Amino acid sequence: MKRVAVLLSGCGVYDGAEIHESVLVLLALDRAGAQAVCAAPDVPQHEVVNHLTRQPVAGESRNVLVESARIARGQVVALSKLKPGDFDAVIVPGGSGAAKNLSTFALGGEGFQVNPEVAEVLRQAHASGKPLGFVCIAPAIAARLFGDRQVELTVGTDQGTARVLERCGARHVSSRVVDAVVDRRLKIVSTPAYMLARRISEAEAGITKLVQAVLEMA
Amino acid sequence: MKRVAVLLSGCGVYDGAEIHESVLVLLALDRAGAQAVCAAPDVPQHEVVNHLTRQPVAGESRNVLVESARIARGQVVALSKLKPGDFDAVIVPGGSGAAKNLSTFALGGEGFQVNPEVAEVLRQAHASGKPLGFVCIAPAIAARLFGDRQVELTVGTDQGTARVLERCGARHVSSRVVDAVVDRRLKIVSTPAYMLARRISEAEAGITKLVQAVLEMA
Repeated sequence: MKRVAVLLSGCGVYDGAEIHESVLVLLALDRAGAQAVCAAPDVPQHEVVNHLTRQPVAGESRNVLVESARIARGQVVALSKLKPGDFDAVIVPGGSGAAKNLSTFALGGEGFQVNPEVAEVLRQAHASGKPLGFVCIAPAIAARLFGDRQVELTVGTDQGTARVLERCGARHVSSRVVDAVVDRRLKIVSTPAYMLARRISEAEAGITKLVQAVLEMA
Repeated sequence: MKRVAVLLSGCGVYDGAEIHESVLVLLALDRAGAQAVCAAPDVPQHEVVNHLTRQPVAGESRNVLVESARIARGQVVALSKLKPGDFDAVIVPGGSGAAKNLSTFALGGEGFQVNPEVAEVLRQAHASGKPLGFVCIAPAIAARLFGDRQVELTVGTDQGTARVLERCGARHVSSRVVDAVVDRRLKIVSTPAYMLARRISEAEAGITKLVQAVLEMA
């Protein structure tokens, strides 16, 4: 049974991991007979956002690992405890958490950085030949880490975001929401999901293709 | 297009709506071409549980509607604003939120009560001939509200829970996780989901059947 690390970044589209995307990744893995190993960094969230008003909540603090445990039904490990032998591939769902907690993409413009623990896990996995999957805005992380190798990836059709990724060295490929872009040379897969999805079933179609491509190369 | 109110109860299996079940309900509705109308009561959660340690967090308070908005990507209305003309059926996902926030089932033993706003919406919908669906532990709510009509429902195979529901007047039917129990007379459907599921794809199978049965009767 193939084991896939799913890197969560909290719980909620505006300050954490996008919940639908995360659950759809878990569903597609399970359907394909693979085992999900959820992991998240044990760090404070960049912010807490009230998802009803979309406004940041002053003075409230939540922990990325603890909130990720909601999506994982308690079954999540601190990223620092994840060993290379624990997984055969890595998938990073989207949501603002990927751009605020796993990286500073949503905050720092072109000079954005990836959380060092996240960067190490992904770089090591990649160096060992393990495939990586990035959903929604998470391909920004791949652009920063693998732009020097001209990684091919998609964030859908948003030209502004695509340009930032290309300035990291990545090659952006426009994609429909129901598709996934596969860089077979680097074993890196991406899909737009809620960068484009208007319905959950659209996100599901692309995520299922991403998961299939990742598992096929694992 | 059929519109189905999805009654959320927070965000997380131990203190709110079970996330997988909620997302799988939304997915099955969308696939079937129905529109989900997410709603939740605007009340404080009974408690906040750290999903990593499963321990209650002293001194922390969260709001059921605000946390439900995480699952609904912001698109959720206060239950008090939901009008009968807005929906053709109601589905209640499970999770501790159904047993702690929408009712006092997890707290009160046999004398448990249903939140009055929740009870009114469900009773009114039922009186108008709209089908209702209850997932996981949420059938306890149906047992309390419709036990006097000998509603037929399932919480899987847990005999202890089943007995409590039967003391409300309900008739409990054991069910496999991948199935749904349909009371055609009362138009009430239930499925065990994470009362029994060991894998998300098992929960999905039963929830998809529940959604299909609800839509068929709507």
